[in-house]
Amino acid sequence: MAKMDLEPMMKPKSVAIIGASRDPDKVGHVILQNYINSGYPGRIFVVNKNADNVMGFKSYASIMDIKEKVDLAVIAIPAPYVPEALEECGKAKAKTAVVISGGFAEVGNKALQDELVKIAGKYKIPTMGPNCLGIMDPRSRVDTLFLPTYKLSRPQIGGVSFVSQSGAVGSAILDMISSEGFGLSKFISYGNAAHIDEVDILNYLIDDKETKVIVMYLEGIKRGKEFLEIARSATKAKPIIVLKAGRTSAGMQAAHSHTASLAGSYETNMALFTQFGFTIADDLNDLLYYAKAFESEPEPKGNRVAVITNGGGIGVIATDEVAASGNLKMAEFSQQTVDALKKTMPMLVNVRNPLDLAGDADGKRYEDAISAVMQDPDIDMIIVVTLFQTPGADSSVAAKLIHYKERSDKPMIGIAMGSEYTQVHKLMMESSGFPVYDSPAAAVKSLSELLKYKEYKGSH
Amino acid sequence: MAKMDLEPMMKPKSVAIIGASRDPDKVGHVILQNYINSGYPGRIFVVNKNADNVMGFKSYASIMDIKEKVDLAVIAIPAPYVPEALEECGKAKAKTAVVISGGFAEVGNKALQDELVKIAGKYKIPTMGPNCLGIMDPRSRVDTLFLPTYKLSRPQIGGVSFVSQSGAVGSAILDMISSEGFGLSKFISYGNAAHIDEVDILNYLIDDKETKVIVMYLEGIKRGKEFLEIARSATKAKPIIVLKAGRTSAGMQAAHSHTASLAGSYETNMALFTQFGFTIADDLNDLLYYAKAFESEPEPKGNRVAVITNGGGIGVIATDEVAASGNLKMAEFSQQTVDALKKTMPMLVNVRNPLDLAGDADGKRYEDAISAVMQDPDIDMIIVVTLFQTPGADSSVAAKLIHYKERSDKPMIGIAMGSEYTQVHKLMMESSGFPVYDSPAAAVKSLSELLKYKEYKGSH
Repeated sequence: MAKMDLEPMMKPKSVAIIGASRDPDKVGHVILQNYINSGYPGRIFVVNKNADNVMGFKSYASIMDIKEKVDLAVIAIPAPYVPEALEECGKAKAKTAVVISGGFAEVGNKALQDELVKIAGKYKIPTMGPNCLGIMDPRSRVDTLFLPTYKLSRPQIGGVSFVSQSGAVGSAILDMISSEGFGLSKFISYGNAAHIDEVDILNYLIDDKETKVIVMYLEGIKRGKEFLEIARSATKAKPIIVLKAGRTSAGMQAAHSHTASLAGSYETNMALFTQFGFTIADDLNDLLYYAKAFESEPEPKGNRVAVITNGGGIGVIATDEVAASGNLKMAEFSQQTVDALKKTMPMLVNVRNPLDLAGDADGKRYEDAISAVMQDPDIDMIIVVTLFQTPGADSSVAAKLIHYKERSDKPMIGIAMGSEYTQVHKLMMESSGFPVYDSPAAAVKSLSELLKYKEYKGSH
Repeated sequence: MAKMDLEPMMKPKSVAIIGASRDPDKVGHVILQNYINSGYPGRIFVVNKNADNVMGFKSYASIMDIKEKVDLAVIAIPAPYVPEALEECGKAKAKTAVVISGGFAEVGNKALQDELVKIAGKYKIPTMGPNCLGIMDPRSRVDTLFLPTYKLSRPQIGGVSFVSQSGAVGSAILDMISSEGFGLSKFISYGNAAHIDEVDILNYLIDDKETKVIVMYLEGIKRGKEFLEIARSATKAKPIIVLKAGRTSAGMQAAHSHTASLAGSYETNMALFTQFGFTIADDLNDLLYYAKAFESEPEPKGNRVAVITNGGGIGVIATDEVAASGNLKMAEFSQQTVDALKKTMPMLVNVRNPLDLAGDADGKRYEDAISAVMQDPDIDMIIVVTLFQTPGADSSVAAKLIHYKERSDKPMIGIAMGSEYTQVHKLMMESSGFPVYDSPAAAVKSLSELLKYKEYKGSH
């Protein structure tokens, strides 16, 4: 099957919102409002046959009445009227469509969905949905999500593209991303996958230069064989992090009921996924953890990890996690590093890995430690623990960490745990590209996956 | 060995702060400030031979100069002066002591530490530390922590006592607790465990009526055999949740370097811990997850879980987690529940478990679902997923959930994931005793541990 051109959908010069409404309770109202709020620079057209004017926009009775080219038609009207609207999109030569409306295969109405697919095929309009949140691209400011920004914060611009069949999971993750310090390339919630499916989306994201990391939440895969074939070559170019729901038979049944797509045997899928270089997440939080590390970190040169900490106990736990990871190990400091540290560290600091800087460590001590460890050829990755509860840890420590992070060619990630004061510093670091994790387990497994992927790429 | 009476330490009528200082950079200054800020209702005495007056308090040259009884002496002076100060505490008949100062066995100065233990024994003063954060009890307002409240938020009053050898881990966890909606009974950071050790602390907490759940972060155990004997009977009365650092040989070495206490074989310890009814955490976050559920939830009557959700995908993932948990299973709704739900739910809701209320679910739909499920004799535990990003989910949903939670005799916990809007509602629910988790995995494993502990108690 030919590749579908999703570029007019993600970077449309003009958008028609079919079902845009003055009624704030209507989905079409929220979508139009979000387009206005996002500062979308293209043309916006409103299609609503029951109004002359919606929120200052002239309202057309049909998309066919619009004289200009429409790159993207967003359809948010009751299900029975969707086929006619899509037919009109075809006649009007709209380039792409996103059907937000539910009420198709997911509620047993397969016939209505088939009709939709037939029309999309007939007019060759790549059509997303139905029963989906749609798409978001912070660069082009496309935003078809019908969830207001006060409920769902929109993330900043970045390199992670996030794909979710489920709108609810997608919206929760998107909202969570906005609290983490990494940015979004594309968000795609594709719902019933009636026309555009996983294969089409993957094809698009592989070629998309703005996408550095692909993150997918999957319930089922419609064209499993093709998907795996494409993914196999894709993972050689960029990482694909995947969470597959339905890994138990109970979960598989629930997935089937939910999106009417068949989930293959989890073990079979996962064995192939691993073989083809996917990064596999076991939980929703893993998706975020891994995406954060993959977006910001360089490839590790090897598996030797140094841990610098101002809390001895966290150093111990991180050491446990490294030793238990299966592919990482604790580095041994080179003689040069040991000598440098012995010169700069106070007596009470035991020069070894994990390096416990003690509870009174300040910016200067962190600086001395990191500058030594960064240059050590026997160290491949660095974890910096900062418990901002301790007396010496403040913004000056965060500033030092950021300074050295920008000069490091090794993966360097942080761990910080706590409430307000800690969160402010976490944000400060993350907005400067220093990923910070909320537990040793999360940090170490992210490095472990980073190394796994690097080794996969190196051998393929 | 006789039990040590720690009651005068936790509920002191009078406190002497040895080393209280006008210099804001000194530990003794922060401790005094925290006593003032906390509204501690007892008598505060300042001991500092280099001052006449510290922050409005008359300064005594020695604790022996104080004419009144001192229940708790907090010592925060350089290590070499600590033995003399403790000797004077003995002569002044102070009832208990907490030695904050570091510079003892943890830096190789075993002799100085032995001297301390000898003095504590000679005068029979239960002595916490050295090299510790000390203690906190939000009821008595005792707070020996030398970390200012803007860095480390103090939790509300509750039933969880948290014990940590490591001050840094302790402070991070304490700060994290304050962002969760559960409360603290006692916080104890015991450092080098020179005099008061794990056994003494456990003995105290078992008898402490304010402590409902004991949470311990352990690096080593000084008197392992006694500890396990006491714990064995303790777990019949209240849950003990434990995280043991040093589970790998690399971690064990790091632990040994850090607190100078020997870590036994992890496998041996864990096998015994499990056999004796401990709840074992694998990560720091697990400690919080489990504590939250154990503090607020009743004992489950069985292993059958119902999942109610407004996001189908999260229902699928939760189902996976339940099926993979090893001891839980998805409930089958009774005929009565099915009939009730069919009456109240809209057509598009498929009446089965997980119950997907759909993305437009509002307070009324949650109410109809929960009131039916709560009464079902075939359901033992309830997980309620609320994605506050969706259109229908707002404070009225949270209010309904709280309403039914207060009337439920079954464990009922929540899942909500997201940034600001979600966090506000999570806080609203948690401050009303409805624990909310940030992932299906965290929620399900908390219920799984709740059931394990109930079954252990039932069989012992």
